[in-house]
Amino acid sequence: MIGGMGPAATADFMARLVRGVAAGHDHDHPRILVDSNPHVPDRNAALAGTGPSPGPALAAMARGLAAQGAALLAMPCNAAHGWADDVRAATDLPFIDMIDASVARLAGARTVGLIAVAATLDARLYHRPLEAAGIGVIEPDRAEVAALVARVKAGDVGPAAQAAATVLAAGLVATGADMLLAACTEIPLVLGQPQCRVPLVETTQVLADAVLEAAAA
Amino acid sequence: MIGGMGPAATADFMARLVRGVAAGHDHDHPRILVDSNPHVPDRNAALAGTGPSPGPALAAMARGLAAQGAALLAMPCNAAHGWADDVRAATDLPFIDMIDASVARLAGARTVGLIAVAATLDARLYHRPLEAAGIGVIEPDRAEVAALVARVKAGDVGPAAQAAATVLAAGLVATGADMLLAACTEIPLVLGQPQCRVPLVETTQVLADAVLEAAAA
Repeated sequence: MIGGMGPAATADFMARLVRGVAAGHDHDHPRILVDSNPHVPDRNAALAGTGPSPGPALAAMARGLAAQGAALLAMPCNAAHGWADDVRAATDLPFIDMIDASVARLAGARTVGLIAVAATLDARLYHRPLEAAGIGVIEPDRAEVAALVARVKAGDVGPAAQAAATVLAAGLVATGADMLLAACTEIPLVLGQPQCRVPLVETTQVLADAVLEAAAA
Repeated sequence: MIGGMGPAATADFMARLVRGVAAGHDHDHPRILVDSNPHVPDRNAALAGTGPSPGPALAAMARGLAAQGAALLAMPCNAAHGWADDVRAATDLPFIDMIDASVARLAGARTVGLIAVAATLDARLYHRPLEAAGIGVIEPDRAEVAALVARVKAGDVGPAAQAAATVLAAGLVATGADMLLAACTEIPLVLGQPQCRVPLVETTQVLADAVLEAAAA
């Protein structure tokens, strides 16, 4: 698991992997090797051309996990999937793509409210596959998402942050979204289905499900 | 981090490491390499002589983490500390001992209610240092602790499991404990300070604090 982007999202992903196993005993769970590296270059700065690429760091993490014995790779950070090809090229291991797995869960949507940071939006990581599937995309206010994600990364997941997330989600529904995608792994820490008036797909949960399915295969 | 004993305790430990950093940004957090391995031989069976030693598996995990670049080692499982010497011997890295760190937090206690599984009790991991410090130890009913830990490992951390933990803690206080030690990393998932009438020291939190302190040094 190529993690640490951010650390709280990685801890949340770990907890979902645990909860996703109907385990009577420790040994019913898969072994998970995690590199939680919060020092990977910033994805938004890289895509904006104002910072170095995270590609080499992500590739190095992939190689380290492979050397430690990993059988498959996953990366619980949507924006980092802009550099998924660097991860794929770094080892021979299968890579479970969070974007592909999440798009598969959006079948039937007319218009998706895409809650994501600038790097994910600008790299069109979800726009391309959704538009190819004939599904419309509504973007949120970027400053609003950036402020919310910064808040979560700073450790604030309290009622005020949750209220801001609720307002953001409601805005997307008001402008036509009939499904919401939490396409940033910080978002589910402050936004859950009860706060949304349309179905919410959490990319973190989609990836956890896909990892457990692959580990059980 | 030598983890996975059990997986939920490891996820809880990761979350505590995240919460313990007053971080404005991802890069304020330390990098954490985790081997969450739920296939380590059972500690209770090993100490009872009915199963293989977990020592070789723990040593192999330590070597793998060292090879990946770890600068220090920690192991959020109390019972596994019965094989801490195997971990220490496996690499040249500093090992943050959860037992030592926790005992240091019990200064001032007269009698500690030691909430731990059989392997931890039988190896006298806490008895020895506490008795050396002139602190008394009260043991819980082993079957009660085993049932509670099995419940948590099976994913049950709901109100009934919490009530069982409350009753267990109250029993130790009734028989004379003036401080409680959650000396099994599954316990804090169902027992918190509000459920206890005397101070509760959580070994998981003690280790998280010690790791963050060492990482910041």
